Formats: sequence, structure tokens, C-alpha cells
Amino acid sequence: MKQDYAVRIDPVLAAGLDRTKAAADVCRARQTLEHGSGPGAASTGWLELPARIEPELDRLEEVAADLRRHEAVVVVGIGGSYLGARAVIEAFAAPFDPAPKVLFAGHHLDARYHRALLERLSGADYAVNVISKSGTTTEPGCAFRFLWDDLGRRGDRELASRVVATTDRARGALRELADAHGLRSFEVPDDVGGRFSVLTAVGLLPVAVAGIDIRALLAGARGMMERLRDPAADSPDTNPALAYAAFRLAAFRAGKRVEVLSTTAPHLGCLAEWWKQLFGESEGKGGQGLFPAALSLTTDLHSLGQWMQDGPRIVVETALDVVWEQPLAIPAMEGDRDGLGHLAGRTVHDVNRIALAATLEAHRDGGVPCCRLEIDRLDASHLGALLYFFEYACGVSAYALGVNPFDQPGVEAYKKNMHRLLG
Amino acid sequence: MKQDYAVRIDPVLAAGLDRTKAAADVCRARQTLEHGSGPGAASTGWLELPARIEPELDRLEEVAADLRRHEAVVVVGIGGSYLGARAVIEAFAAPFDPAPKVLFAGHHLDARYHRALLERLSGADYAVNVISKSGTTTEPGCAFRFLWDDLGRRGDRELASRVVATTDRARGALRELADAHGLRSFEVPDDVGGRFSVLTAVGLLPVAVAGIDIRALLAGARGMMERLRDPAADSPDTNPALAYAAFRLAAFRAGKRVEVLSTTAPHLGCLAEWWKQLFGESEGKGGQGLFPAALSLTTDLHSLGQWMQDGPRIVVETALDVVWEQPLAIPAMEGDRDGLGHLAGRTVHDVNRIALAATLEAHRDGGVPCCRLEIDRLDASHLGALLYFFEYACGVSAYALGVNPFDQPGVEAYKKNMHRLLG
Repeated sequence: MKQDYAVRIDPVLAAGLDRTKAAADVCRARQTLEHGSGPGAASTGWLELPARIEPELDRLEEVAADLRRHEAVVVVGIGGSYLGARAVIEAFAAPFDPAPKVLFAGHHLDARYHRALLERLSGADYAVNVISKSGTTTEPGCAFRFLWDDLGRRGDRELASRVVATTDRARGALRELADAHGLRSFEVPDDVGGRFSVLTAVGLLPVAVAGIDIRALLAGARGMMERLRDPAADSPDTNPALAYAAFRLAAFRAGKRVEVLSTTAPHLGCLAEWWKQLFGESEGKGGQGLFPAALSLTTDLHSLGQWMQDGPRIVVETALDVVWEQPLAIPAMEGDRDGLGHLAGRTVHDVNRIALAATLEAHRDGGVPCCRLEIDRLDASHLGALLYFFEYACGVSAYALGVNPFDQPGVEAYKKNMHRLLG
Repeated sequence: MKQDYAVRIDPVLAAGLDRTKAAADVCRARQTLEHGSGPGAASTGWLELPARIEPELDRLEEVAADLRRHEAVVVVGIGGSYLGARAVIEAFAAPFDPAPKVLFAGHHLDARYHRALLERLSGADYAVNVISKSGTTTEPGCAFRFLWDDLGRRGDRELASRVVATTDRARGALRELADAHGLRSFEVPDDVGGRFSVLTAVGLLPVAVAGIDIRALLAGARGMMERLRDPAADSPDTNPALAYAAFRLAAFRAGKRVEVLSTTAPHLGCLAEWWKQLFGESEGKGGQGLFPAALSLTTDLHSLGQWMQDGPRIVVETALDVVWEQPLAIPAMEGDRDGLGHLAGRTVHDVNRIALAATLEAHRDGGVPCCRLEIDRLDASHLGALLYFFEYACGVSAYALGVNPFDQPGVEAYKKNMHRLLG
């Protein structure tokens, strides 16, 4: 594996955007990020994470192995305490798995889902990883109450052996609970915000429980970290994160207001959700920021293709192009009645990539500047590299827009209303 | 059930939009739709479908019952031949079902998915419903080749008994195949486009195979049809589809470019995908049309909430508020360490709806005009009503924008490139 080339950017498709001026601005923004001279600098611990997390790995793997002995592990979290782990787990999940090891809860307030979950777990041998910095967030709090109640009926020893908390080191409701009951616990670092926490225990424990190689994930992230933070990689030509940030900045300045992330496989759908939080929550402030949306190709060509080709020209597209996927040849058909005889013997993935190339060309010609991100294959190492790539590009991109990438003041508004309406 | 009120609209939240001028325009657009005087009028057969489909129901139910005897039924289709059925089936699917009756294929070109599907089906007792007007679309064509090849090895009688085609009455590749092999078949009407076809055999057969009451679905749609097409329901005050269309038109004219459909349960995610095709493909033409996006609440408050509250003010929000859901009370917790003691004893759904109300108020105050659609409960009848409601509102809305709601000229661009790249 050529780690240096885990992510390549093809900017040729970005016709119509002035990336030259944007280039200078993202280079300055990178200095702000690297020097810790911008707002929110106390939350840039994620920059070092791929190296810094190393000492925790033995214990993470040990606890994960213990949790895996249970029939199922319920991961309770929302937002940044949910999306990263789910993105990685789904990227490698077997389609049609009738009994996945990791189940998710606490990420919404749907009664039907919770009831089905409790039925599924009734009498089952399961464990819980509850993830919350504070321990007082409504959704994971509600879900955790159900599970704590259920396990509590089985006795205190069951609680202590079956519940692992990922939370603040010293403070907060979940920390207190963990200490009071002698739960095993992992730390959510103070200098890493939720949406940048996938490479802490927040993401790594559930990912390890799912059987994914977290050392490979981190090795990929570390390779990307070294590449992007190399002082010599100081321009969009030498630093793909700067190239991507410049593309986005130029797009916003040209009046674009929506960025679509196109992926080419359904198992990348949650990665797109993680990406949406990362960029949307980091940049969507004071009237700034592209609206992040996702296309799952080729599915969505048959639903949103028309709008992409011919709707308001406020959109840019970033496409994730995975070079290698397992080969599966399209079979012949007697008589070729379906008019698809030219596809017989080609691999499904080959046709999928050709469809992507055709789509990006068409969208560009239709007035949608495109940015193709190429990764060699989708394994843990390449995915780790990609996660770090997006995080770094996001920090740079938000600083270039002039916003603090690491706060989220707007999310208080509905919470205030909610407390009022709940009395 | 009060059928007349299956959908209520709360316009109070739409602060800042001039819906008065839009009201006159959507009323005119409704006349265009009803009189068949606009472009694409030959494709308005869906207006009558809830009544017209009646004579097909006995045979649809009979074939569905026969298909249900198999362990699994693979539904092969994409776009309008896929999303409607999946939206209805997922709305009622049991979470964590280890062996769903209906599997989907032909909606993308992911090799890993196809390989897993073939492994799952290997030696299994399964049937296929292949859905395509032409029979030559790439994605369903590829998937169908795999299944046809597999079943073909089991002999010709297996093909004839296990494959049901939903296709053109008289022409096309799939019609020829069905006739040549004596397959059972259903018709895709000429006067109903793909994205309006959920209430034809295209949607109804898979839905019936999944065990859902298609007569209740159609009864709800019929009730809504009679309500919306009532000549007396000629203003936004008396016709909720006109109210919704006026909201959307006023939004576009006020410079809004994104419409978010917010749903409050994960099982409504595919309904949002269906809605995205319906409106995006009908309106996204000649620079017109809101970009349709989806929020799954409360999940996405913790990812896109910040952008919604404080990003560029180009967005409006439509929220689906389901009044009744099965009650499930949040348990007490000793000591209330999580600070959520005030929620103990309340139902999860109650808190979910309060979160939605709090969110819409916050978004409106943040400059996002909102439209709340209220349905009494999510059963087949109410869902049928909702599907028709959206279709009717879409036809009106697109005519009011000045576009043909029933064509999709832009989707040819990537197909042309694809044929070139495939040689």
C-alpha cells in the first residue's frame, strides 16, 4: 500500500471556480490551525490523536475483546458520540447480516425502535457502551435509562461487568455513575470536540467491538497526519487537504451554497452522515458554510440526477472514488434481450466507476464544479487516512471562512425551547 | 379515523414568506393540472389511480400471496421503480428483523452488496419481482442478470414460477422476455411516470408481498384524492396541498434554495428519499426548484442543527409530525444522576414530539420558515393519503414554478457519457 497516496484529488473537474485566490487564504488558515492562533485552539487535540492515542490501544482492545464475548453490544450515543463509530462499522459491515454484534441506541427518540430493541435484548446476553461527555443529553440519556433498568433487574454485578462508559475524565453525570458503580470507563479528552472524536475511545471502542482492526485504522490516519502536517506540504499542489479546502472556499465565494458528497456504495452512507456533521457543524455559523448533503450513487442519479444536472446552479459535488473493490463479473444472458450485452464479463465495480466518471463529467458540463477524491481501496488503513483527511481539511476550511471550527453555539436554541416546553 | 384530516398543515411557522401572491399562482396551477392543459398532461394518469387501480387488486393480492410462500422475494428496480415500494415497506418494517421477506437489488452497482446477496440467496427458496418500464436500465439490468442466471440453472419451470415482471403492457425488452418465458406480469401504465407510480403494481406488488394492507393504503389515498380534487377545495385555506405548494413557491421566490423534509423516526428515512425524487425530479429544471434534502430527527439535530440554526438563510423546513405512536414510558432512575428525572414516566413519543416543536420554533426564530404537516398516525391508510398528498402538491407546485412536472430531460447527460466511456 502506498500510504502517501491514500487520497488523491483530481481538480480538473472544478471548472469555473477561482481557486487561486482561495489557495492563498487556505494556506493562511492552515497556519492558524497549526499555530493554534485561531478561536477554539484549545479544541485542536485531534491534530495529534493518531499518535497520542497509542498508549490506550492495548486496553481498548482488551475491553473490546471482553465485550465481544456477549451476543450483542449496544452502543449508546448521538452526534459526535455516534456517527464516527457507525460510519466505520458500516463501511465494513456484511450486507444482510442477520445478527450484527453492534447495535445502536440513543441516537433518536423513536418509540417503535426502542420497543423493538428492548424485545430483541429481552433475556439476551448483551453489554452496553454508553458514550457521552456530560451524561445528561436527552436521547442517549433516555435510551440508557431503559438499558440500565433492564440490566439492573439482573443485579449489580451484571451492571458493573456489562456497562462500559466513555465520558469525561473527571466530571459529569456519567463519570459519577461510572465511579459509583465501578464501571469500566474510557476518556473523552477535553481538547477534542465530539465531531472530531472518532479516533478517541469514543469511536475506537465500538469499532474494535465490531471486529475492525483499530491499529490499521490509526496507522492510516497517522500516515495522513504526517503527510498533511509536513511543513513542506504548504500548498494545494502538495497538500490534498489544502486543495480540497480551496475548492470549497472558492465554491462558497462563487455563490455556491450546497456541497454534495457522492459515494458509490450503500455501506458508505453513514460516512457521508459523519462528513455532514463535521463540515456542517464546523462551518454553518453567522450565515457561512455550504449546506452538506449526500448522494448515494448510482441510486440517487435516478432521483436527484435531474436536479443536479439542471436545477439552480448553487451546488458543488465532491465524489469519493474507490479504485479497488472485489471483482464480480456480470454474467452473459442468452439473446441479450436487455441490450446490456456489452457489459457481460465486465466487473460490477468497473461499471460503477465508469458511471461515476460519466456523472461527474455531465454535472461539470451542467455547471456543477466537481472534486474527485480517489482512494485506492476501502480498508481500515485507507479509511483512517480519509477520516483524518476530512478533519484536517475541515479545520482549515472553517478558518478560511472566518469562523471558529470548534464551537456550535446554534444548537442551544432548540434545547432552550425544549426545556421550556417540557416544563 | 377522520380521513378528512389525515394531513393538517400548520402555517403559523412560515413567518417571513409572502404566501398571498403565491396562493393565487398555485390556484391557477391547480387548474392547469386538473384541466390537463399544461405540458406533460399525458402523464397525469396518477391523478385517478386510487380509484382506477381497483380492478387489479384481486390479482395483485393473489400473486403477492403466492410470492410470500418463498423465503425471500428480491425486488429489482431503481428510481421510481424502487423508492415508493421501499418507502412504504420500511415505514412498517420491524426494526432488527433478521430475515425480511423483501430484499432489494438493482438500485446501485455495488459489487460487495451483489456478492453478499448472491451468497444469501445461494440454494435458498426465493422469487423475484423485476420492475422496469423498458427492461434496459443498467442497474436493474445487471442485478437481474445475476438472478436470472442463478434461477436459470435450476431449470425453465423455476424461472416461470419464480419471476414476476412489472413492465410495459406491450413493448420493450422486459415485456418480450416475460412473454417468451411465460412469466406472470403486471403493467406499468403509459400515463404514469416512474416517480408517480407507487400506487400502481410497481409499488403495490412489493408492498403486498411485505404483508402490508394495500387496500387500506389505497383507501387512504382515495380519501385524500377526493378531498384535494373537490372543486370546492379551491384555496390554500381549504386544500392542504395548495397550502403546501404555496409555501414552497413563496419560499423559492424569497430566494430559498433548499427544502429540508424533517421526519421523526428512522423508519421514515426512505419516505424522505421518495419525496426527494418526487420534488427534485419534477421541479429541478431550467434553474428552478428547491434542492430537496432530508433530516432524520432528532438524530440530525446533533449534526446539522448548527447549520440549520445559523448557516446561510437559504433553507425552508417541512416537518412530518405523527401524532400517535405506540406508548413507551421512560423509566425512573435512582438518584436521577442524568438530570433527566423530569422525563421519567413520560412517553418516548411525547418527548420526541416536544423536541420537534422546540426545533421548529428555534429554526423559525433563526430565519428558517417552517411548515408542519401533521398526520394522526402512521398506518397504511394515513400513509396512502400522505403519498397522494405529496404527489398532488408536487404537480401543482411544479406547474406554479413554470416547469413540466412530468419529464426529466437532464438525466440523459450522464447516460450519454456512460455509453461513450463503456465503448
